Amino acid sequence: MRWCRFEHKNASSFGIIEDDKIIPVAGSPFGSYERLKTRVSLARAKLLAPVDKPIFYATSRNYRKNLQDSIGRSNRIFAMAEPWAGYRAASAITGPDADVVIPSDCPDDVYFQGEIVVVIGKKARHLTHDGARDAIFGYTIGNDVTCDTWATTDTRSWRGKNVDTWKPLGPWIETELDVDKAMCRVRYNGQELVGWNINQWYFSPADVLVAITRYITVNPGDILMMGTEGVRSPYVKHGDQVEVEVSGLGTLRNRFVKSVDWY
Amino acid sequence: MRWCRFEHKNASSFGIIEDDKIIPVAGSPFGSYERLKTRVSLARAKLLAPVDKPIFYATSRNYRKNLQDSIGRSNRIFAMAEPWAGYRAASAITGPDADVVIPSDCPDDVYFQGEIVVVIGKKARHLTHDGARDAIFGYTIGNDVTCDTWATTDTRSWRGKNVDTWKPLGPWIETELDVDKAMCRVRYNGQELVGWNINQWYFSPADVLVAITRYITVNPGDILMMGTEGVRSPYVKHGDQVEVEVSGLGTLRNRFVKSVDWY
Repeated sequence: MRWCRFEHKNASSFGIIEDDKIIPVAGSPFGSYERLKTRVSLARAKLLAPVDKPIFYATSRNYRKNLQDSIGRSNRIFAMAEPWAGYRAASAITGPDADVVIPSDCPDDVYFQGEIVVVIGKKARHLTHDGARDAIFGYTIGNDVTCDTWATTDTRSWRGKNVDTWKPLGPWIETELDVDKAMCRVRYNGQELVGWNINQWYFSPADVLVAITRYITVNPGDILMMGTEGVRSPYVKHGDQVEVEVSGLGTLRNRFVKSVDWY
Repeated sequence: MRWCRFEHKNASSFGIIEDDKIIPVAGSPFGSYERLKTRVSLARAKLLAPVDKPIFYATSRNYRKNLQDSIGRSNRIFAMAEPWAGYRAASAITGPDADVVIPSDCPDDVYFQGEIVVVIGKKARHLTHDGARDAIFGYTIGNDVTCDTWATTDTRSWRGKNVDTWKPLGPWIETELDVDKAMCRVRYNGQELVGWNINQWYFSPADVLVAITRYITVNPGDILMMGTEGVRSPYVKHGDQVEVEVSGLGTLRNRFVKSVDWY
């Protein structure tokens, strides 16, 4: 099943995608819902990020080449002995096909990372591995946009990863994805930069959910970004297009623009 | 005006406090609302944290003694040349008079920091100082509970500051507080540990809001914790009570308990 969020009658609505149509619902996939009678053309709909103001967990250094890249750039060894997750800010989320805006005073070293994103379906704490697998509602795609300078110089990367629009998510949530068979591919202006088997991660979503729910309650609609593979992307230029494709799920496509506003 | 959130008819409701009564409202202080006809006894109500799933900004090292303490414990100089704010997780928020629960596998060095918390009332980006002052809806009180070991060893303090219940907030939002005249006092089992003039901060709420809204959109109901003064508190023991009082606002009171659950 594919769940989206989209602009509908000047508001946002959840919807179920069937073929080339969206069936709007009253309610939410994370609570109760009712299919409405109308149908909306998927091609013409403006899709939004498929979750609304989640708690946004993110693990990283979860693939071999990405870990090697982190180690090479640091004077510390960042091997992750235990699963864990930090945070991104929900305020930075934007939707598929939306512009990622780089403020005009931003250093010229913004890069991107395609990742698969777990969508949580249950309120849970103290999950077991079986429970964690049951608590996964589905998967979507994310792009972890980062300014290299700010991520290094800022206290806790406060801007470095969390500028408005720097966390594109979408295009929808797929609830039936066989993640063990799925590939993730990242394309930069149409050219493939990297592709990997998603399940080559060091820690699976269940590993991370077991670890964080020892201390933290997760809730329906919260999300967990699983990390990327491959070395750093090129630094983006105005007008660049980035696509993150997950086989069996879809493609998250966004354009980068440099702001010419007064800052 | 004093706004609270409280348990009402098996749900949560916002309410206005007048004398010893709560006037429940339909709606929210951050949108439109209507006063209901019923009245609820404040003394008997179960108050909740006065905001619901905010984006939770936090600045720190914002007072002289606290900054000196940070410098002394680090091999880096942490003087803050520019205002900034990192994040806490909304999942860690609990209410006034609620227990702060320390997991049984948690190292024995959990401390607390009383702070004033700004509640944002407007959706805004690119705020000026005047605009930032207008965007402040009111103030509440917070306690930034931290595990010293985890905050040091964890990647990005993921557990160190964000275990469930480690961010008590309340007891309510005061919209008329004259913050330039307010004192904050922290009491530990009834004994005062520290008291300070809130406006002795290096950076005011307007300074921080101007800085973060260059890059980030803030929204009604989001919060900004302003940092604490004074050196580190004692490490808590089971049964300890901590009170954070802000003159002209109220007192946030919480008990610490060590969990005996299976973890």
